[in-house]
Amino acid sequence: MEHIKLGIIGAGRIGKLHAENLKNLPQVKIKAISDLFADTIKDWAASCGIENVSKDYQSIIQDEEIDAILICSPTDTHISIIKEAAEAGKHIFCEKPISFNLQETAEIVELVQNHGVKFQTGFNRRFDHNMSRVQELVRAGKIGDPHLLKITSRDPAPPHPDYIPSSGGLFIDMAIHDFDLARFMMDSDVVEVYAQGAVLIDQAFAKHNDVDTATISLRFANGALGVIDNSRKAHYYDQRVEVFGSEGCLNIQNDFPNSAELYTSEGVFKDKPLYFFLERYNNAYIKEIEAFVDAIVANNLVPVTANDGYQAELIAHAAKLSLKENRPVALKELAAL
Amino acid sequence: MEHIKLGIIGAGRIGKLHAENLKNLPQVKIKAISDLFADTIKDWAASCGIENVSKDYQSIIQDEEIDAILICSPTDTHISIIKEAAEAGKHIFCEKPISFNLQETAEIVELVQNHGVKFQTGFNRRFDHNMSRVQELVRAGKIGDPHLLKITSRDPAPPHPDYIPSSGGLFIDMAIHDFDLARFMMDSDVVEVYAQGAVLIDQAFAKHNDVDTATISLRFANGALGVIDNSRKAHYYDQRVEVFGSEGCLNIQNDFPNSAELYTSEGVFKDKPLYFFLERYNNAYIKEIEAFVDAIVANNLVPVTANDGYQAELIAHAAKLSLKENRPVALKELAAL
Amino acid sequence: MEHIKLGIIGAGRIGKLHAENLKNLPQVKIKAISDLFADTIKDWAASCGIENVSKDYQSIIQDEEIDAILICSPTDTHISIIKEAAEAGKHIFCEKPISFNLQETAEIVELVQNHGVKFQTGFNRRFDHNMSRVQELVRAGKIGDPHLLKITSRDPAPPHPDYIPSSGGLFIDMAIHDFDLARFMMDSDVVEVYAQGAVLIDQAFAKHNDVDTATISLRFANGALGVIDNSRKAHYYDQRVEVFGSEGCLNIQNDFPNSAELYTSEGVFKDKPLYFFLERYNNAYIKEIEAFVDAIVANNLVPVTANDGYQAELIAHAAKLSLKENRPVALKELAAL
Amino acid sequence: MEHIKLGIIGAGRIGKLHAENLKNLPQVKIKAISDLFADTIKDWAASCGIENVSKDYQSIIQDEEIDAILICSPTDTHISIIKEAAEAGKHIFCEKPISFNLQETAEIVELVQNHGVKFQTGFNRRFDHNMSRVQELVRAGKIGDPHLLKITSRDPAPPHPDYIPSSGGLFIDMAIHDFDLARFMMDSDVVEVYAQGAVLIDQAFAKHNDVDTATISLRFANGALGVIDNSRKAHYYDQRVEVFGSEGCLNIQNDFPNSAELYTSEGVFKDKPLYFFLERYNNAYIKEIEAFVDAIVANNLVPVTANDGYQAELIAHAAKLSLKENRPVALKELAAL
Repeated sequence: MEHIKLGIIGAGRIGKLHAENLKNLPQVKIKAISDLFADTIKDWAASCGIENVSKDYQSIIQDEEIDAILICSPTDTHISIIKEAAEAGKHIFCEKPISFNLQETAEIVELVQNHGVKFQTGFNRRFDHNMSRVQELVRAGKIGDPHLLKITSRDPAPPHPDYIPSSGGLFIDMAIHDFDLARFMMDSDVVEVYAQGAVLIDQAFAKHNDVDTATISLRFANGALGVIDNSRKAHYYDQRVEVFGSEGCLNIQNDFPNSAELYTSEGVFKDKPLYFFLERYNNAYIKEIEAFVDAIVANNLVPVTANDGYQAELIAHAAKLSLKENRPVALKELAAL
Repeated sequence: MEHIKLGIIGAGRIGKLHAENLKNLPQVKIKAISDLFADTIKDWAASCGIENVSKDYQSIIQDEEIDAILICSPTDTHISIIKEAAEAGKHIFCEKPISFNLQETAEIVELVQNHGVKFQTGFNRRFDHNMSRVQELVRAGKIGDPHLLKITSRDPAPPHPDYIPSSGGLFIDMAIHDFDLARFMMDSDVVEVYAQGAVLIDQAFAKHNDVDTATISLRFANGALGVIDNSRKAHYYDQRVEVFGSEGCLNIQNDFPNSAELYTSEGVFKDKPLYFFLERYNNAYIKEIEAFVDAIVANNLVPVTANDGYQAELIAHAAKLSLKENRPVALKELAAL
Repeated sequence: MEHIKLGIIGAGRIGKLHAENLKNLPQVKIKAISDLFADTIKDWAASCGIENVSKDYQSIIQDEEIDAILICSPTDTHISIIKEAAEAGKHIFCEKPISFNLQETAEIVELVQNHGVKFQTGFNRRFDHNMSRVQELVRAGKIGDPHLLKITSRDPAPPHPDYIPSSGGLFIDMAIHDFDLARFMMDSDVVEVYAQGAVLIDQAFAKHNDVDTATISLRFANGALGVIDNSRKAHYYDQRVEVFGSEGCLNIQNDFPNSAELYTSEGVFKDKPLYFFLERYNNAYIKEIEAFVDAIVANNLVPVTANDGYQAELIAHAAKLSLKENRPVALKELAAL
Repeated sequence: MEHIKLGIIGAGRIGKLHAENLKNLPQVKIKAISDLFADTIKDWAASCGIENVSKDYQSIIQDEEIDAILICSPTDTHISIIKEAAEAGKHIFCEKPISFNLQETAEIVELVQNHGVKFQTGFNRRFDHNMSRVQELVRAGKIGDPHLLKITSRDPAPPHPDYIPSSGGLFIDMAIHDFDLARFMMDSDVVEVYAQGAVLIDQAFAKHNDVDTATISLRFANGALGVIDNSRKAHYYDQRVEVFGSEGCLNIQNDFPNSAELYTSEGVFKDKPLYFFLERYNNAYIKEIEAFVDAIVANNLVPVTANDGYQAELIAHAAKLSLKENRPVALKELAAL
């Protein structure tokens, strides 16, 4: 298999981003894209060299020439699309979270295994130049045995209030990336979670039973401990990780648009870090989708599995329960696999 | 009052350190020092210009010329010394913790108030150039309303195993500084604590029912959240703080012995941060004791009160209970004041 | 003019780089490319969507559909190609230096003006995210009046010895970028130069009357002073600039592949800066060529003119003379315009 | 010799600074100090434990108990004091420059050798924690053979205009420290100098035939090259050094009062570097004078010799001549030794 043919379901911000990254890969052809607002994307699709644009995603799944499907539609459509695609024998790349329902996600993990299709979950941060370098050095033993993990993950500004009720809440919408990163960095599953939350930015979150600020304590299967802190409003994208171990400590800083420093009689000034995920994780998205394509072309394992998606959701659901009942929650209380 | 006369009880590492800092203050005379091993410190005391060296601390308390007492003896001797000193009308500087017993510490808070003597608790980190600058900028409103606090506090190497059983445990021996710093930075009391702990460095901690690695989640009276992480073995002194709020974020890095960076074909290298508290907090100890002296000379309020000592101990006891019962603990469950 | 058609002369490393950047610009079509080794680039050209590949550059110049020419062939071919292209009314983008002969370059400055074609010199560093941010802040008056300029510019490894005799020497081959940057940062011409040189890396440079290590002192028309230092072997690409003025100082650091820092008992380690110009100036090349295309599409001034090319060469020739005669050289001694 | 007795000549800012540092050294007793305004320093001298305060420096030199003299009086008094002290067999610490006259300084180099007294020149920067760490790593071969040296040395604000005519000019008053640092870092003498200067800050410098802004190119005996840049007005003390060699590069940053960084929607802010030499070189002054005392107590070589003072002055005089005649000046043109 030298060239592979792809179909994309959902042409929102993230679907378009993947399409534009894919068009620079010589071993790939995007054959079709579907979107509820298919009419509005025709010019854009043409400029990407995509032949077929439709409202109907099923025509893509039924296209025998298509090897793999990217699922970039809203979360509540994922399960049925995945089922149809897996049954049609398509490889699947699915944005996070796989679903809002842990039992349904667990079924997907088994389903894709049974159908023997590749399934990659869209945890792009694993492919970031900073994150992947830290993980690589941890895995190389540079800090000895991991003891502590610290993740800071803060968005620049809250989402539109209309989005909040359908978001799944801070843990499933936002911190889920941190939960995946935690497992990635520590090479160990999480066994217990304790979450604190607060509404300090916008009462709209309180109205929908959500929080905008949180800290999450993690206990890993390997005995290590972790802490995550989240905020919906940091004025820039704050994405930092630290892994501390028996022999040392690894950390990363945010990325900046430039390194210029201005020294004056008033002090030292520099530009703030990159604003949001499109700027910060631009290269990570490229590497993520290349990895998916490479796994198909070379018939290798995908780097982020359906189970990785499930495990992060499991932590998120446990964090939600912990917050609700104000107690540490063992993951086995909720586990569906 | 132009010159004040001081007595020091306990001439271990910290007692000597205070003596050497005090000898550079023109408005102070150290009249006497007591220590169980008085014989071994005579030459040193002479070089500091200290006239009287004795085994017996009570002669110091009874000396009518002495205005103030520094208590640098082991924690289990603090309560009785404080009581005698307060009754003798002496001002008191006492190393942390005030005691291992929350009820006894609470009594001291009331006692020193009733006797009208000044009482400063030895939380030196408040006087660190980095810590105090962050607090100053937080207080000046530079980050708006505080939302999140992060403290990393790691010792370079574990204490001698013999010290562990008498230490009071990680929370009371070590994290107590972080609990005080948390209140100092946020200008708010802590209302709830959840602690995770692990023995990852040395089983000697397990033998004494202690931990060597911990994370602590805090909830503050003002609604903000916090996380602390501790380790007994970081190979250098890792002391960092971050305060995040509605308008921005403040953080500090560790101090380094120099700023030299070596760039080679292998990478970039620099010396690790300062090794331990004597190096890192050298200036903080000087400013701490100057502040105590100034408060007496100018009859001002001390910058760190007996209640500050009590509040930090209260958090430490709550963290210990939280770890034991694996649940969040509201501070009012334990409060003795 | 909505779409413009381009021809590229020379398909070496830099010619290919421009072609690959141009293929992502929707307003551009690369119609033809020529190279002495045309046979070897056919597949690559096809993958870039370039129709015509020839050995003969003149067919490109004579193609009436082609609006603009990129000259990426060896320096000694530039003059005749530029003349033919200008006479054919093509806009021109030319890699640096325009020529090895100051008089000839001066003639080009007049020629392109007389023919009314746009001519952009390939000084890519002006488009670097760091360099352009510094220049922008200098121009905005953030450091007041510029007083001092410092440029460090060091290659990772010397060129192949075979390249040295045809390179034009360190000042024309390498430091010419720094001379352009100097004028760009200071918004002022250079009036006097003093150069020191040495052969410290490889005697191959001495054999060809060249140096591998140099420092250059500059005096600007606005009264400010500058210093440049160059080396052919820094093990990574070291490209830093500092502009100091009456009200402050601006500087930039090198770019790094990631921000990971490893702290151990031995010290602190991070990866070295990006290796060479393809890594460091990747984005600058994209912006440079976009700026050329935009100038044509919108009929604007190009951001780097033929005179900018001439001025940098003038400084380079003066530096060469200064080194030879070990004396400061006033640029008016050499000026051909 | 266990205790040594010192006399200090000159109780201006620097004389007092040395006295206060010396009073913390147990192996030293400052027996006497002289100053033209002896009356005004009596209280201060008493607080330092100095017995004798006089207008007359000769009484100090004639005091047989005194082992060593610190010369902290104006430069034009140095030569005669040094001669008298050397003849009296006193060891000498002398502030820089030794004199304004190269021939006279050369005579001092021989004189102190002939009298067998120790003579340390006051180049405090060699003792700075950053500078000494770089030199140590250079000497340990970490960058291979040194190829390039860069020194940035800028004062926060110009001296009082009245001081300018008696200062000796920028090269002798200010850059002389950089000239010594250059030799210290490179472990090689300077053989040629080229200086550029400008008056960009205050016309008072022009009035006295001086400059306020300069760059200096150096050629070392070992073949390496160097550049220094100076300004009289940087709003803070800017003192940075870089040494580049065959295997790597070492550099240092300025020291800051704290490491606090404030991130807001506007950018990132931190406090500017330490203001001037008293803040920045506080520890260097302590180590400098300890080294002098140690050399006497242990009968070791002093770390900065009279010849080091002479060599730095030689470079300064050459730079002055270079600026006047706008040409590179070989040091052997001026050499008096």
